[in-house]
Amino acid sequence: MSREQVFWGWGEPGAGPRLPEHAAPFLRDALGVDGDVVTRPVALADVRLRESTLDPGVRRRLEAIVGAVHVRDDREARVLRCRGKSYLDLLAQRAGDCESAPDAVVAPRGHDEVRAVLQLCSDAGVAVVPFGGGTSVVGGLEVAARPHVSLDLGRMDALLEVDERSLTAVLEPGLRLPEADRALAAHGLALGHVPQSYEWATVGGCVATRSAGQISTGHGRIEDQVVALRCATPLGDLATLGAPASAAGPSLRELVVGSEGALGVITRVALRVRPLPAARRHEGFLLRDFATGCDALRRLEQAGLAPDVARLSDELETRLSLDLAGAGPAARAVLRARRCLLVVGWEGSAEAIARRRRPAVSLLRRAGALPAGRRPGRAWLAARFAAPHLRDDLLDRGVLAETLETATSWSDLERVHDAVRRALPGTLCGCHVSHLYPTGASLYFTVLARRDDADPAGQWRALKAAASDAIAAAGATITHHHAVGRDHAPWLGRETGPLGLELLRAVKERCDPAGVMNPGVLGLG
Amino acid sequence: MSREQVFWGWGEPGAGPRLPEHAAPFLRDALGVDGDVVTRPVALADVRLRESTLDPGVRRRLEAIVGAVHVRDDREARVLRCRGKSYLDLLAQRAGDCESAPDAVVAPRGHDEVRAVLQLCSDAGVAVVPFGGGTSVVGGLEVAARPHVSLDLGRMDALLEVDERSLTAVLEPGLRLPEADRALAAHGLALGHVPQSYEWATVGGCVATRSAGQISTGHGRIEDQVVALRCATPLGDLATLGAPASAAGPSLRELVVGSEGALGVITRVALRVRPLPAARRHEGFLLRDFATGCDALRRLEQAGLAPDVARLSDELETRLSLDLAGAGPAARAVLRARRCLLVVGWEGSAEAIARRRRPAVSLLRRAGALPAGRRPGRAWLAARFAAPHLRDDLLDRGVLAETLETATSWSDLERVHDAVRRALPGTLCGCHVSHLYPTGASLYFTVLARRDDADPAGQWRALKAAASDAIAAAGATITHHHAVGRDHAPWLGRETGPLGLELLRAVKERCDPAGVMNPGVLGLG
Repeated sequence: MSREQVFWGWGEPGAGPRLPEHAAPFLRDALGVDGDVVTRPVALADVRLRESTLDPGVRRRLEAIVGAVHVRDDREARVLRCRGKSYLDLLAQRAGDCESAPDAVVAPRGHDEVRAVLQLCSDAGVAVVPFGGGTSVVGGLEVAARPHVSLDLGRMDALLEVDERSLTAVLEPGLRLPEADRALAAHGLALGHVPQSYEWATVGGCVATRSAGQISTGHGRIEDQVVALRCATPLGDLATLGAPASAAGPSLRELVVGSEGALGVITRVALRVRPLPAARRHEGFLLRDFATGCDALRRLEQAGLAPDVARLSDELETRLSLDLAGAGPAARAVLRARRCLLVVGWEGSAEAIARRRRPAVSLLRRAGALPAGRRPGRAWLAARFAAPHLRDDLLDRGVLAETLETATSWSDLERVHDAVRRALPGTLCGCHVSHLYPTGASLYFTVLARRDDADPAGQWRALKAAASDAIAAAGATITHHHAVGRDHAPWLGRETGPLGLELLRAVKERCDPAGVMNPGVLGLG
Repeated sequence: MSREQVFWGWGEPGAGPRLPEHAAPFLRDALGVDGDVVTRPVALADVRLRESTLDPGVRRRLEAIVGAVHVRDDREARVLRCRGKSYLDLLAQRAGDCESAPDAVVAPRGHDEVRAVLQLCSDAGVAVVPFGGGTSVVGGLEVAARPHVSLDLGRMDALLEVDERSLTAVLEPGLRLPEADRALAAHGLALGHVPQSYEWATVGGCVATRSAGQISTGHGRIEDQVVALRCATPLGDLATLGAPASAAGPSLRELVVGSEGALGVITRVALRVRPLPAARRHEGFLLRDFATGCDALRRLEQAGLAPDVARLSDELETRLSLDLAGAGPAARAVLRARRCLLVVGWEGSAEAIARRRRPAVSLLRRAGALPAGRRPGRAWLAARFAAPHLRDDLLDRGVLAETLETATSWSDLERVHDAVRRALPGTLCGCHVSHLYPTGASLYFTVLARRDDADPAGQWRALKAAASDAIAAAGATITHHHAVGRDHAPWLGRETGPLGLELLRAVKERCDPAGVMNPGVLGLG
């Protein structure tokens, strides 16, 4: 429990980038928000918190398992683990509404302590919410059940094994991604998994939420990286084999990946890792419009020429990012003929980058892409973790700021893009294609609006429900990489059908008969 | 039910390649088998078969669902669907032991008929064995339960939809792979999935058994190709979404892939397909020894330079294939310095092949590989489906001939190779690496021995158990692409652990409470 974020926003106090000066006029012009009026979150002392309802006997037994100092119920520990980092979470946290905070924070060390805690909580009827980086944006952490404990995995943060020949590493779940990369770098290796939450996300959290990162187009999603895992459940351990591939029945590994703590707690993961890239090259291209850009990306991917990073902004997102960057008239003039910015990136040896880049650039140019040089690539790299930091400033200034995402086939991509944007009237809704697959791609939407301070949560809930309905109606997935949590649970059944949900429930009931594991995520009550 | 195989071996009567003339001296020298003594399978009329025990009322209801002509209980239909094509299966079939044959063969057309048949059989307590190509080599088809019906999917053989932009196709399960490729070729597309059983295997069978094919190193295993599927179970339908990727909870698709008919019947599959390759190039290289070759393949794969096909034979398999091909002294002389044959292949546009091949060949040469030209590539292509045909001739001649396979990490590859071969004393056991992955590879063993005619089944069962124990003890998977069936079921628990098996059982019980779906596969009774 060393590094900790502020309870009301992103990152450590005062750390990270801030909104630039010229954002204020933009907010005024685009959203009608008076950028000079600033409302700050309540102080920790003013947060509303209930007394812990944890039974003293249970508490003593938890202390016996993990050590007294690792069972905390102080205000700071509980408030920080009350919620994740969605817009709705931050609205509530900023307002000091933490009545749903956990009754205690329990920090086990090692698989056996996790197992013992889960058995105890199952016997005692205490709900358990596994806590890694605390970066959920889908309501993965807030439980209505009482009593409940937050199971902080921060002490399980070791790199346990490295196989440099097979390019695999065994890691504990609480290891944060930057620390994992630091430990691997000593072996000349890297995770190659970089979600926007990279600074805080943990290995276990990525696996439990079926995460994808900014270089997943090239390096694969987390489920492509998971070789094996061990999961402690209230009723026993689930450990999968580390074979590179197998035909030994249904994939149990794929049952634990994305299980969001509803079955148990992932206590170790074997991941595929990569050699530390010797070089990186990120650069920009300008495409005539979003449709042309999507088609160029489809051709790249289907020809086996996809870069490791590929992000195509639609017309609005391209314009907004120039506005927020304070771009001059020259940059704006270019945008008249080429309205969409594409950032592409390669990692690896200089030779491999050159070999892969040449035919890809040639294909892009045939699709009418105008090279915009390395500057947009460098700008993207520099700002790739900035958004959640900037959002705190936007919330201070009365802005509704949230993201949502989906994935669909290449044939349906533009239809889904249009349908989601139509479902969000009265907002500024920019979008980019963020991950490419042979059969389709993801769409990542950023929504900005003037906050309705009469009912800010209701304002977003209505917009989010409309966007989610549009996504489901179009046959796209309710989430490409944010996971389900509680926020997406009402739409999960549209993807799985009733029998699909029944099967998830059957699995949960077998691992967790008392129903204590993160109740509510995936719609499993 | 148009094309049908012989009941005692591979393929249509008289079709396919035969053992060459010079095989007889090889069999005599290497195995001590008198190649001139030929024992043929019994005639169909002499096969031992029990009367059908299907209740006449149930039969009438089945006929009402699928049509009277599609419920068969004639000798030929039942005998052909009694077993798959493993060595043990063929021993029993050749001897005319078909007491375990299904009581009837039911051929539904379309999802709704399948659903109705499953509901009826579940109500009536009649076991159901889905039958696609009938090519199981792991005991996927033979059920002890009585009564039981074979659910022949041969009438569900349509290519339903093609999305040329997203490169996906929706296919019915009973479509055989060559027919699927023919239908796709009209759209300029191909499946890109070529197991050795290609001539007979069906789309649904590949998905249900988590298949891999000869070009899966480049094109991915069947689970990488499955975009979505629909599965009829006795208790309802399971249909997964066709998004290219999703973070919406555990993967239900991965629960059906590899389920081997234990949950229900896959009634349609959306697969990723590929443009018909404009060119192919297959060629040979000679490597100093197996360890050097494995290391070269590891470097190729980990550098992102793997060909679409990569098959490295160990020293014995290389020598055996030369012997069986009747190679001359010149070819043998080369083998003194370079003892292992590697066949590699690329598919795609001529430009893409050239672009990918150049750095791969350069890496191979740096690893000491000696180019052996295109002839070994052509020979491999020509013979890629020959083995199961030749096996019938070998069985005629008193040879034990079977294959087994596994996959493990690069670090453990040689250890597993040695352990399996040590577990099979008194046999000729050659091996090749057949599929490459970033973290490891598969090993495919071919076992030849003089058959012990006192107890031929017992002879193989003992060898197979020893090899399986060695695989499990080494932490490798019991099957890389042959599936589990009944033959591998005793070893499945070593991979999944007790809770893993419990979860599979929980899922089965929810879909199939009467336990009628292919009872026994995956150890689910």
